[in-house]
Amino acid sequence: MKFEIDTLGVIHSPYKEKFAIPRQPGLVRSATARLELLPPYNQADAVRGLEQFSHLWLSFVFHQTMEQGWHPTVRPPRLGGNERVGVFATRSTFRPNPLGLSVVPLLGITLEKGGVWLELGAVDLLDGTPVVDIKPYLPYADSLPHARGGFAPEPPRDLLSVRFHPEAEAALARRRDLPALRTFLSEVLAQDPRPAYKKGKPDDKEYGVRLYDMNVRFRIHEPECEITAIESL
Amino acid sequence: MKFEIDTLGVIHSPYKEKFAIPRQPGLVRSATARLELLPPYNQADAVRGLEQFSHLWLSFVFHQTMEQGWHPTVRPPRLGGNERVGVFATRSTFRPNPLGLSVVPLLGITLEKGGVWLELGAVDLLDGTPVVDIKPYLPYADSLPHARGGFAPEPPRDLLSVRFHPEAEAALARRRDLPALRTFLSEVLAQDPRPAYKKGKPDDKEYGVRLYDMNVRFRIHEPECEITAIESL
Repeated sequence: MKFEIDTLGVIHSPYKEKFAIPRQPGLVRSATARLELLPPYNQADAVRGLEQFSHLWLSFVFHQTMEQGWHPTVRPPRLGGNERVGVFATRSTFRPNPLGLSVVPLLGITLEKGGVWLELGAVDLLDGTPVVDIKPYLPYADSLPHARGGFAPEPPRDLLSVRFHPEAEAALARRRDLPALRTFLSEVLAQDPRPAYKKGKPDDKEYGVRLYDMNVRFRIHEPECEITAIESL
Repeated sequence: MKFEIDTLGVIHSPYKEKFAIPRQPGLVRSATARLELLPPYNQADAVRGLEQFSHLWLSFVFHQTMEQGWHPTVRPPRLGGNERVGVFATRSTFRPNPLGLSVVPLLGITLEKGGVWLELGAVDLLDGTPVVDIKPYLPYADSLPHARGGFAPEPPRDLLSVRFHPEAEAALARRRDLPALRTFLSEVLAQDPRPAYKKGKPDDKEYGVRLYDMNVRFRIHEPECEITAIESL
């Protein structure tokens, strides 16, 4: 049996491509995002009382990878990318229904020109992600600190230390409109966004990732990441 | 933008009708349920490694109420049923996309005759519920014990004390196939499943609810509930 679901809202976030998005929403805390409700769901009534909750569940669609379909097994990066586990034992995007789930901090609600915007703390969502449900986080029902977390019992460790090349420092200084930019880039790149097969080996490649309206270039020599340049797009 | 999602599996639970279903999955702990994966998703591969996790997130469809559409505001039972809040500030079934979300204990995985069944602890799901996604519960990302829980900061209190009329006792004794039945019925009815407008007033009505293959009859004189009869259907 099939069901049709509609887009209720769309995410506006600094992540302009899938590469370098943290694997869970709480891992990069310095980026904020906005959820714009779309007509006919952009009614102040529909979010009345939501401000009483500190966190929300967002159900969303993996819109950029859904065309690729699903696989019964996937290789989670947490297992080094060379062990296969069942797709339902992971939060991989390559699932039968392209539904994602994230808990995000709710910082506020903005009503403007008939529009409704939810101001969100750190998200792990691509810019433009279609949101299909919003629910309050209920700590008495949803918080299970003693649940057994399988192959992902803790946040990823072995973070890289991030430094900025003088040219990147100069670019940072020019972006006074984004005061948390240094922290944000440091948190994103500390997680080592490279594919698992690249890790633990010499790597001279310069990578680039689109964040906000920038192309951020970097090189990784573990345990260090150097941001070599920040270019405007 | 609209998306089509497919049913991956179906719930087999004691709850044969919406009335008396607990409002969150952990509130009635004695009932177990099963999730049957449907072709082509009933592959042992697709759940490989899932047994390492103690809890799952199930995304499901509110199939019995979806025809009724959505309302921008609803009256949550937690507020006595006479205060309106936005639908997105609740887990009400009357939402734009009829998607539900429950965290449930995973007790085991059964592979039989090419079928895959997930053995679940307490659920709050109607028998026959279509499941559209299964994800592992990740305590490091999902457990936020200090989140602010709005108008539902704690589990519902003011539970009723439940007693069994001798006729109901006799029926219980005949159901040796369901050894946890007494506890299950006590937990379900202790929550006072009546509509909010009935509460706090004299109420002589006899109610009936279908649980398993039974019609369970009861009367409520707060703070007591008497199970008057348990009839086979």
